[in-house]
Amino acid sequence: MRLSQYFLPVLKETPAEAQIVSHRLMLRTGMVRQATAGIYSWLPLGYRVLRKIEQIVREEQDATGAQELLMPTIQSAELWRESGRYEDYGKEMLRIRDRHERDLLYGPTNEELITDIFRHSVRSYRDLPRNLYHIQWKFRDEVRPRFGVMRGREFLMKDNYSFDVDFAGARHSYNKMFVAYLRTFARLGLKAIPMEAATGPIGGDMSHEFIILAETGESQVYCHSDFLDFDALADAVDYNSDLSAIIKHWTSRYAATDEKHAAERFAAEVPAAKQLTTRGIEVGHIFYFGAKYSKPLGAVVAAPTGEEKPVEMGSYGIGVSRLVGAIIEASHDEAGIIWPEAVAPFRVGLINLKPGDANCDRVASDLYARLLAAGVEVLLDDTEQRAGAKFATMDLIGLPWQLVVGPRGAGAGTVELKRRRGGERSELPADQAIARIRGRPG
Amino acid sequence: MRLSQYFLPVLKETPAEAQIVSHRLMLRTGMVRQATAGIYSWLPLGYRVLRKIEQIVREEQDATGAQELLMPTIQSAELWRESGRYEDYGKEMLRIRDRHERDLLYGPTNEELITDIFRHSVRSYRDLPRNLYHIQWKFRDEVRPRFGVMRGREFLMKDNYSFDVDFAGARHSYNKMFVAYLRTFARLGLKAIPMEAATGPIGGDMSHEFIILAETGESQVYCHSDFLDFDALADAVDYNSDLSAIIKHWTSRYAATDEKHAAERFAAEVPAAKQLTTRGIEVGHIFYFGAKYSKPLGAVVAAPTGEEKPVEMGSYGIGVSRLVGAIIEASHDEAGIIWPEAVAPFRVGLINLKPGDANCDRVASDLYARLLAAGVEVLLDDTEQRAGAKFATMDLIGLPWQLVVGPRGAGAGTVELKRRRGGERSELPADQAIARIRGRPG
Repeated sequence: MRLSQYFLPVLKETPAEAQIVSHRLMLRTGMVRQATAGIYSWLPLGYRVLRKIEQIVREEQDATGAQELLMPTIQSAELWRESGRYEDYGKEMLRIRDRHERDLLYGPTNEELITDIFRHSVRSYRDLPRNLYHIQWKFRDEVRPRFGVMRGREFLMKDNYSFDVDFAGARHSYNKMFVAYLRTFARLGLKAIPMEAATGPIGGDMSHEFIILAETGESQVYCHSDFLDFDALADAVDYNSDLSAIIKHWTSRYAATDEKHAAERFAAEVPAAKQLTTRGIEVGHIFYFGAKYSKPLGAVVAAPTGEEKPVEMGSYGIGVSRLVGAIIEASHDEAGIIWPEAVAPFRVGLINLKPGDANCDRVASDLYARLLAAGVEVLLDDTEQRAGAKFATMDLIGLPWQLVVGPRGAGAGTVELKRRRGGERSELPADQAIARIRGRPG
Repeated sequence: MRLSQYFLPVLKETPAEAQIVSHRLMLRTGMVRQATAGIYSWLPLGYRVLRKIEQIVREEQDATGAQELLMPTIQSAELWRESGRYEDYGKEMLRIRDRHERDLLYGPTNEELITDIFRHSVRSYRDLPRNLYHIQWKFRDEVRPRFGVMRGREFLMKDNYSFDVDFAGARHSYNKMFVAYLRTFARLGLKAIPMEAATGPIGGDMSHEFIILAETGESQVYCHSDFLDFDALADAVDYNSDLSAIIKHWTSRYAATDEKHAAERFAAEVPAAKQLTTRGIEVGHIFYFGAKYSKPLGAVVAAPTGEEKPVEMGSYGIGVSRLVGAIIEASHDEAGIIWPEAVAPFRVGLINLKPGDANCDRVASDLYARLLAAGVEVLLDDTEQRAGAKFATMDLIGLPWQLVVGPRGAGAGTVELKRRRGGERSELPADQAIARIRGRPG
């Protein structure tokens, strides 16, 4: 993409309303623009990141055998009356009345609707287990939306729902999602810690939140500092195998959010030097809740014994749009964002320092074409801005690599390659720069 | 995907509420399930098709230089009051009041919101032209939703918006979308005819609808039958070149929807034998409306002369979810759907006629692995159903190829390959079958 043609409305000044760094940076870089309180438009740069995160979440779900569908944003109130949550949910639910005076709502979550789909389609344990997910916009009418996409009203969530005939199966489904979440967050370049959590309006008996540690987080969290050194799950996982050893490892140390925190247990289980008390951002939340929805909604299956029983369910959420903010909170510096490679909107920012100079134009065009041909996403700054402004913009938007073409180097056959994270620079021939970006020996 | 594990709730009987064939087939094949009036959940099979269509639409938009973003589903009423459409839009607009008693609405279209984004970001003709699009769910509170996803209330639309400094530029932007639409529908396996159309609530001075001819269509249409023989635009198009010859060709014959139909002109311009009077399905609609929104919303740019003027705009919509139904209307037979290759949920249905038979299992597993390795999407029927039911289901869901492994062939080293469209069958060695499916000489 050529910057001269790209819709990237970078702001010179930070809007006053932004309180946290991710919100400031997302507004300044033109990633998002507020449409109205807690509701954002995702401009091209931001939308690219959102889609990359969504795709990683999807791939890790598919790897578990979960199947993707898409439920609508608008739901009928009837189902929520069946489950008993329509009155309970309170003012966070956006309630709507249509032209025929029927009660609708903008889904804040989908337990009822997926249970309705299930009860009309599945009758026997032979069709279990099932795990169905979707990635869809949700709405929660927060009383005070803030922190940009971190606590917006309209937000993108991946939520899935597991169906099993008994507790052992449900437990395995829970474990699969636990492991998939660890893998998902690791691929996103995040260190997420599973913490015992309260179940809130979803309800249920077993629940973990996945928390990114960050000073700006909304929750107070308490955990053993060993978690910081736990290895990510890089290798492929056989989801049909017994996953309990992985779960055991990741729950072997104390970790709890405020709501579940037990000060005495924390003091007793964690040596003082390892007690980490900080703040965190919830990026995922998993629940096992058995028959909480299947029972009132009559989602029953025939067990192997022939008897009919309510199906055992769990639900599992990842805040996809919130993750954009969370990643920035975890990865930035004074100059701007530092994108992890996996979610960077472009891999390379190619700066032509002097458009109009024949050498610079030739070298920049050549590099641009070669990077595109190699499948590398590149943003070419071909604008008339002065050098300082170009460098500042590239640092601000935080692409992993910067490739700088200036008159001196272009004459001598070299370019400058800069790694955004760390800031190392080197002057080298174009071939070597491309090889380095592609991660091959150059 | 193994059918035994796939969430594909095929119905034995057609629900009584379905009046048209696409609706019947989408319900029967478990592609969608109605959540409430005019609102559907897309089950895994349907969602695969929806995403394929979406991706083709996206690729053809990107090829024109249009840039993707994502505006939210919920909008503030304020902007619509600025444009004057809040009161005008009538009962089709889903109006919402939030917990703070602020007026919101579920966007039926996005002219106001994109103009708001534009006016805060672009100031000069030097940043034009721009063409921004998104693919997002919309809501129109139809008084009588019907025909399944063809006339639902919550529906997926690709809409884009062009911004130019003058009419010549706006006309070129309009032409680009005209050409992109022809290409998009051709890739989807559809013959779409551009017809002069009324502008309706979007407004404007120039407008074409893209219509698929179908008996079940909602609009009466009148056109010259030559259109049926026009060649699709298969070759790559240079969108920076003058496109007027293509537009001229595709508007050289009479074609109009009911609202724009002029019986005298039709009689005068079209020989009687070439007068086609039938029904059609609108799958795309493009509008040029100049300053209709930019003027009231104050979206002005500095022209080359230095003077400030409202930006010239157009908007362009494709009904992505409706296309799923339209394609089925255009491509089915008594036995079920016949998917065009480009949007088929899977390319091949691989039927193991006798799971448990060692030969059948070995051959089916081998074919399954080889097709997956070749990047061919395949649905393996490994269920215990009897042969007749398996054949019927495969015909019903309409995958382009069927590959049948039975005990006799498996022993002799052959399989049966069937083309869903046309129904030709041949018995041949597995290697040749795979080569034929992959479109290579076998």
